[in-house]
Amino acid sequence: MKVALLCIGDELLKGATVNTNLAFIGERLLRNGIIPELSLEIPDRRESILKALDYAYSKADTVITSGGLGPTSDDITKDTIAEYFGLPLEQNAALEKHLTSWWKKLHSGPAPLHWERQARIPAGAEIVPNRFGSAPGIHLERNGKSIFLLPGPPAELHPMFEDEMLKKILEKREETLHASLTIIVGIGESIVEERTQPLLRDGISVAYCASPGLVKLFFTCRDEALLNETTAEAKKIFAGDTLSDGITSLPAEVLRLLERKKLTLATAESCTGGMISAQLTAIPGSSAAFLGGAATYSNDLKRLFLGVRETTLAQFGAVSRECAAEMVEGICARTGADAGISVTGIAGPAGGTPDKPVGRVYIGVRLHEAPRILECNFRGGREQVRMQTASRALNELRKLLLEQEP
Amino acid sequence: MKVALLCIGDELLKGATVNTNLAFIGERLLRNGIIPELSLEIPDRRESILKALDYAYSKADTVITSGGLGPTSDDITKDTIAEYFGLPLEQNAALEKHLTSWWKKLHSGPAPLHWERQARIPAGAEIVPNRFGSAPGIHLERNGKSIFLLPGPPAELHPMFEDEMLKKILEKREETLHASLTIIVGIGESIVEERTQPLLRDGISVAYCASPGLVKLFFTCRDEALLNETTAEAKKIFAGDTLSDGITSLPAEVLRLLERKKLTLATAESCTGGMISAQLTAIPGSSAAFLGGAATYSNDLKRLFLGVRETTLAQFGAVSRECAAEMVEGICARTGADAGISVTGIAGPAGGTPDKPVGRVYIGVRLHEAPRILECNFRGGREQVRMQTASRALNELRKLLLEQEP
Repeated sequence: MKVALLCIGDELLKGATVNTNLAFIGERLLRNGIIPELSLEIPDRRESILKALDYAYSKADTVITSGGLGPTSDDITKDTIAEYFGLPLEQNAALEKHLTSWWKKLHSGPAPLHWERQARIPAGAEIVPNRFGSAPGIHLERNGKSIFLLPGPPAELHPMFEDEMLKKILEKREETLHASLTIIVGIGESIVEERTQPLLRDGISVAYCASPGLVKLFFTCRDEALLNETTAEAKKIFAGDTLSDGITSLPAEVLRLLERKKLTLATAESCTGGMISAQLTAIPGSSAAFLGGAATYSNDLKRLFLGVRETTLAQFGAVSRECAAEMVEGICARTGADAGISVTGIAGPAGGTPDKPVGRVYIGVRLHEAPRILECNFRGGREQVRMQTASRALNELRKLLLEQEP
Repeated sequence: MKVALLCIGDELLKGATVNTNLAFIGERLLRNGIIPELSLEIPDRRESILKALDYAYSKADTVITSGGLGPTSDDITKDTIAEYFGLPLEQNAALEKHLTSWWKKLHSGPAPLHWERQARIPAGAEIVPNRFGSAPGIHLERNGKSIFLLPGPPAELHPMFEDEMLKKILEKREETLHASLTIIVGIGESIVEERTQPLLRDGISVAYCASPGLVKLFFTCRDEALLNETTAEAKKIFAGDTLSDGITSLPAEVLRLLERKKLTLATAESCTGGMISAQLTAIPGSSAAFLGGAATYSNDLKRLFLGVRETTLAQFGAVSRECAAEMVEGICARTGADAGISVTGIAGPAGGTPDKPVGRVYIGVRLHEAPRILECNFRGGREQVRMQTASRALNELRKLLLEQEP
């Protein structure tokens, strides 16, 4: 099976919307051993869609589209795809009923013009329910070509793809492939690759996918037992540096460990200015372990909220091992949190000195006892330095929490 | 002139990297009245690149590529494009010298294998300097086809495109088009469109580009005087709801206003958990006006860091007009900041009640005097609610700062 993606919408080409659907679908396919042949972004124009379909099917047998399924006049994906396959659009009564009740649930007054267009489906196509929006997904098989239509909004596309579409796509494969995902934190992609080499043998496919702070390691295999064995060996090789099963981010892993141990956390951030607390609170239910934090950007606030001493700031400066230590001790003492994180550094582009260049960051982590302080020298621009700081700080706390495992 | 984009790299199709280059280039082109015909993401494979070039040139005369210019073995963009145009690659001596000194500036020891491959340029091509990386950009004209090659890392691509490439691309247009950008905040796209209608006349092209909290309004015109007149009228229509010239985000605008008035700001965030302070501190130089903030996620921290009263929390709850008021008063009183922002709300997915559903947020803004409190009801998932909250809060403070203009 060869897959191509077709992302339809003017907003993608005008820079109004970053195409996160491509990354989402790509990652989910990779987990199952599939790498798309190509992805296309095209405007909501009939001739663009028709030409793109021709091109996509010249490279693939399975096409996944996103966007253009809604009720407005520029939503022409369904009409154009029906035309491409020479199929009429048929009004689906059950779908129409569902759409009416969906509208009534959210709005008062009559449904807008063309609302019922969303109930028109190419003859012979299969409907895929949309739990979080009005326009349904569609699956169509014709002349050896498969097509899967998804709505554009990520909040609708993600669950629809994960719950229903992906299964249908994978069913089309001649062979059953089993897949595993291991997420490794704090180790670079090339080192992960190197250490994984000894595990590779006939029948095992491997793929790596690196993003800031973590590397996703995917194995696929026809033989489930061999897959499980290989995955278990990988988990052994990277013991202590992997996320728990089902957890896909560092903040989520830290929160999970804290909750399991019934511990609380507070943060004290200078150069990241609240990024770490924002990442933690992005996770539903984070309030169970996360108390809050102080973004102490000025020296005054470091004194006021964290009790950093005037003399420490004067003698060592705000970007120092000593200040990071007092920050993490201060936030724990003042909030009563069991665990703490502090960061203070020079994110740039200005503010660097020969002694303390841009990218120099001190990270403090603490769990009950004396804080552990790290000196880091990150590369890149302001946002890169800040992102690396946040990842490293969360990973240091994760390691500290693991060390104290029974 | 018709433009197509070609984004080259396995990581884009594997979901490892979100393709932000497309949105960046798309937005910069739109500012100049150009909407790309299509964009393609393809792997680092010779035959994929050759086929994609054929397809791109069937829809466009100008192709912009990103990625695959580095020194490693999977960087084959340059070789494949030279092959496509039937040109040899030539080693450029000046470039080689530059590459050697670039390596020495950042590393000790000899340059890695194939480092000098980056100095190979298709015969007759023009070199575009890379100020933030090793691989140069390339511009080539051949048989009526234009191609512009950019490196993949955004930190290199953005300045190269903005400083040099865009100018070269626009020079290729037969006509000189003038362009203007007006950024409107806190007003929906459809209303912006409606209010702009009366300004449209022969010779003026308009484009809209909406992202959370703001709408970009682009005019392009051959006649510079007519363009300036239309832009001035638009600024009048949206007076009080536009960002200052040269400012492209709400946090940057708020910081600019504060600095101009020599005022300081502090934040108190509950449901956004530090997003607002993280957005403010993402901007270089923010320390001139931003003191810091408290991410008071728990009720204890609201009392401790902000002095919110026990009785207020008991009587009205943490998500209340009263709590938002005490939060913003507290952060200003404790930090001595002239201005303050507070937010408290239910981001979901859990925690909603019939009285206070998911999406209910109270925002407080304050400048010297009594706080102004807003009740908001946002739609969408947890992250959408949090992002809308951050934008709305910053915009409310912006409006308050403008009201007090002399």
